Amino acid sequence: MTFRASVLTLYPEMFPGPLGYALAGRALANGLWGLEAVQIRDHALDRHRSVDDTPAGGGPGMVMRADVLARAIDAVSPADDPRPRLLMTPRGRPLTQARVRELAAGPGAVILCGRFEGVDERIVAARGLEEVCVGDVVLSGGEAAALLLLDACVRLIPGVMGKAESGTDESFSHGLLEYPQYTRPQLFEGQGIPEVLTSGDHARIARWRQAEAEAVTRARRPDLLPPARDGSMKERE
Amino acid sequence: MTFRASVLTLYPEMFPGPLGYALAGRALANGLWGLEAVQIRDHALDRHRSVDDTPAGGGPGMVMRADVLARAIDAVSPADDPRPRLLMTPRGRPLTQARVRELAAGPGAVILCGRFEGVDERIVAARGLEEVCVGDVVLSGGEAAALLLLDACVRLIPGVMGKAESGTDESFSHGLLEYPQYTRPQLFEGQGIPEVLTSGDHARIARWRQAEAEAVTRARRPDLLPPARDGSMKERE
Repeated sequence: MTFRASVLTLYPEMFPGPLGYALAGRALANGLWGLEAVQIRDHALDRHRSVDDTPAGGGPGMVMRADVLARAIDAVSPADDPRPRLLMTPRGRPLTQARVRELAAGPGAVILCGRFEGVDERIVAARGLEEVCVGDVVLSGGEAAALLLLDACVRLIPGVMGKAESGTDESFSHGLLEYPQYTRPQLFEGQGIPEVLTSGDHARIARWRQAEAEAVTRARRPDLLPPARDGSMKERE
Repeated sequence: MTFRASVLTLYPEMFPGPLGYALAGRALANGLWGLEAVQIRDHALDRHRSVDDTPAGGGPGMVMRADVLARAIDAVSPADDPRPRLLMTPRGRPLTQARVRELAAGPGAVILCGRFEGVDERIVAARGLEEVCVGDVVLSGGEAAALLLLDACVRLIPGVMGKAESGTDESFSHGLLEYPQYTRPQLFEGQGIPEVLTSGDHARIARWRQAEAEAVTRARRPDLLPPARDGSMKERE
C-alpha cells in the first residue's frame, strides 16, 4: 500500500515545497508516496469563504471554525479512512521517532494545519484528531511542522532511501544521540582525526563510538537516557 | 537592522519554499527580513564538486567535509559577522521559544543544513557552530528544520505580525500550553460551547482558561510545569 498524505491548509501552494526535491521529491515522482494539499477555504459555508471567527469568551486573534474544518476533513477522509488524522498544534504531544516509524509503516496521514489562535476544540473529538507538536516553538501555522513530519516519514517508506542515506546508525534510532563523525582530509586547519578512528581496530572504534554517543547524550539530552541502573552507563573516561 | 538569514544547503531550491507565502512571504517581499540560500557544492574543491566522503573508522553513509563547509561558511559569514551560526542536526540541543525570541531580536542567522550521516565534527569548533535540534525525529536533511526555525523567528520580527496573528496569548509564550478555543457556531454536531465562555463574566473566563491551560499542560507536557511549590498549582476542580 502506498503512503498517502492529505494536507488541509489555507496555503496549499506551500506543498510539496521542499518535499518536491531530493529524496522525498524523487520518491514522490516515482509514486512511492502521494500528496494532496487541500484548500480549507474551498469548504467554507458562505460566499466570503470564511474559515474563522472570533474566540468565544473574548481574546485576541481568530479561531478556525469546527463546521468548516469538518467539511474539509470529510471531503478527503471518509469515516472508514484507515489513515490517522493529525492536527499540527503547539498544544499537541511532541512528535517522536517511534511515532514517525508507525506512521511511515501505515497507509499515510490526514494532516490539518492550524493557523491563527488555533482550531475550535470541538473538531478534535468530533473527527478523532491526534494533536501533534514539533518542537517547543510557536509557528505562524502548522504547515512548516507538517512538512517536517512528512520529511521524517517519507524517508522511512520502503524503497525511498538508497545506500547514501542508509538510516541504520542514527540519532534517536537507538535511543542515543549519534557519535561524532569525521572524514577526509586527515588534517583540517591543524586539527586531526581522533587516532582511534584510523587504527583499524574495529572493536576499539565501536567502544569509542558508544562512549562518545553516551557522553554527548548525557551532556545535551539527559532526558533521552534510560533511568540509571548499576553498571548500565559507565562514566566516560 | 534587518534580520538576514543565510542558509547553506545542497538544495537551495527548497528556499524560500513555504516561507515565500503568507505572513513570512509578505514580510520577505516587503524587506522586513532577508534570505539567501547558498549551494554548498559551489564551494567544493574539485571539479566533481564533492562535498562528502566516507566516515573515518568505517560505517554506513557519507560525512560532509569540514574543508568544503568552511569555505561555504566563510563566503557568506566573515569572521566579524555578528550573526549566530546554527547547524541543524539531531545531535543538537532542542530549539526553544526563548532561543527563537533571541534570534528574532538579533541580526539574523547563518544556518547550515546537514545531510547524509552528518558533518565532520571539526567544523563545529572551527566555525563556532551552535548545534540545534527541532523535534526528536530523524530528517532527510536539515532543510525542513531550517524552514521551521525561520518560520518561528520571522513572525516575531517587529512589523511582521498584524492583529490577526497577534501572538500575545500563545503556547510556550507563558510557559503553559494554550487553553482550548471555541468560536461560532454555538452548536456543532450537538456539542455546545462551554457555558462559562458565553457568560460575559470576564474574571470567571480568565480563571477557567488558566485552569484549562494548567490541566492540558499537566496531562500532555508535565515537563513544562515549574517544580511544584505549595499552592502554586491548584489541582483542577
